[in-house]
Amino acid sequence: MQEFAITITPRMYETDAMGHINNVTITAWFEVLRVRYLESVMESTPATDKSWILASTNIDFVGETFYGDDVVAKMVDVTVGNTSITFKASMSQAGRQTMQGTAVLVHMDYAAHKPVRVPDDVRQAFAAR
Amino acid sequence: MQEFAITITPRMYETDAMGHINNVTITAWFEVLRVRYLESVMESTPATDKSWILASTNIDFVGETFYGDDVVAKMVDVTVGNTSITFKASMSQAGRQTMQGTAVLVHMDYAAHKPVRVPDDVRQAFAAR
Amino acid sequence: MQEFAITITPRMYETDAMGHINNVTITAWFEVLRVRYLESVMESTPATDKSWILASTNIDFVGETFYGDDVVAKMVDVTVGNTSITFKASMSQAGRQTMQGTAVLVHMDYAAHKPVRVPDDVRQAFAAR
Amino acid sequence: MQEFAITITPRMYETDAMGHINNVTITAWFEVLRVRYLESVMESTPATDKSWILASTNIDFVGETFYGDDVVAKMVDVTVGNTSITFKASMSQAGRQTMQGTAVLVHMDYAAHKPVRVPDDVRQAFAAR
Repeated sequence: MQEFAITITPRMYETDAMGHINNVTITAWFEVLRVRYLESVMESTPATDKSWILASTNIDFVGETFYGDDVVAKMVDVTVGNTSITFKASMSQAGRQTMQGTAVLVHMDYAAHKPVRVPDDVRQAFAAR
Repeated sequence: MQEFAITITPRMYETDAMGHINNVTITAWFEVLRVRYLESVMESTPATDKSWILASTNIDFVGETFYGDDVVAKMVDVTVGNTSITFKASMSQAGRQTMQGTAVLVHMDYAAHKPVRVPDDVRQAFAAR
Repeated sequence: MQEFAITITPRMYETDAMGHINNVTITAWFEVLRVRYLESVMESTPATDKSWILASTNIDFVGETFYGDDVVAKMVDVTVGNTSITFKASMSQAGRQTMQGTAVLVHMDYAAHKPVRVPDDVRQAFAAR
Repeated sequence: MQEFAITITPRMYETDAMGHINNVTITAWFEVLRVRYLESVMESTPATDKSWILASTNIDFVGETFYGDDVVAKMVDVTVGNTSITFKASMSQAGRQTMQGTAVLVHMDYAAHKPVRVPDDVRQAFAAR
């Protein structure tokens, strides 16, 4: 897999009264990373594509994130399964890891409301990375 | 106009590093008040109704808002114009005013992309309040 | 454990272009539930208490959440370990489950930057529930 | 005044069920622009500096903002008054204006809870732009 990383500049309103970046914001940034990665692989915008739904996220808040330094959010591993794609990500700030996380996206037949096989063109797009 | 007010409990992630509720959150709460008011008057959910667009907001942050006490957000005045509706609101916390603001909603012919007259049934619904 | 549940009314700005409540919002609501629960047990506001940090969250987005109906967020189970507390939660909308999740909060010696034993008074407060 | 502009890539969770970027997000981006501008002028981070408070914002939502294209947020004019600084900003997407707004920041004696004169070093920093 080719390296894929984005840089995020923390915003003032993303801090909380603890003086650091709120954990909800970290999950929001994970969405940013995942969506940008998908757009890059699929060469289209999945923003309103209802055939992909987020099934689960697991996030370890390894270290605090602070206002004032950029965060690097990196896609560490992507695995294409039968009906789902699993994304492993990592974030760091000033060289210190702050987050590691996993998200599972399921390919849905939205009308039938059930998971269906990840299409071949998508598999090929991921395999080519 | 009948009194219309909602109570909002500040959330932890709505605070910022200044130790108070972030100003962006105050504008978010103003949306909550406006939408609930509209739903109450129109007896329908305007959430995806593209015939109403927010044209402007003016907000005075009269006093700081803190985590730990409920906020009362109140609709102070509503004026129906030719193609627009103007909402004046006020927020307070523990009896102390924290915000006063105005929002203008315009009634649009979305396809033609221009303002059109507020319909009579909407005028009657507002007049009945 | 006594039942603990809060009711959340989805907000317009919490929707996204998919037409449902965004997943980031669901994680935000989980924070709301967790913080309110803690405040209820500890009878104080932990908002700026740096001795508790969120170590991880695991969330299953079991079903879509929509604008227009209230969400019930419920604490399903709470387990006090040596240096951490594990919270299991569930959300539902109109009787249909939408989320199940786990969050681990660690008790920290913030200055020393390492986990320390959950204090006895906190254990007693949790045991009394 | 030197030109000052930042580029913002809209995020998926910043959309709403109307299919565009939510108005609350636009006000959030205005904060981003204002804070970055201040940091650039003052060469320090005002994130937790309680001597500056936001007194008011006036925003015209001139046109819809969509997911998929970058937004350019530009500081159009900055006026230093006796105890306050007024910022005029503009946003555009794909060459089309989407927002114009004004924000007033007041210099406070936080302890005394009253506005005080903008200090000379700040005036000089702004004048030098």
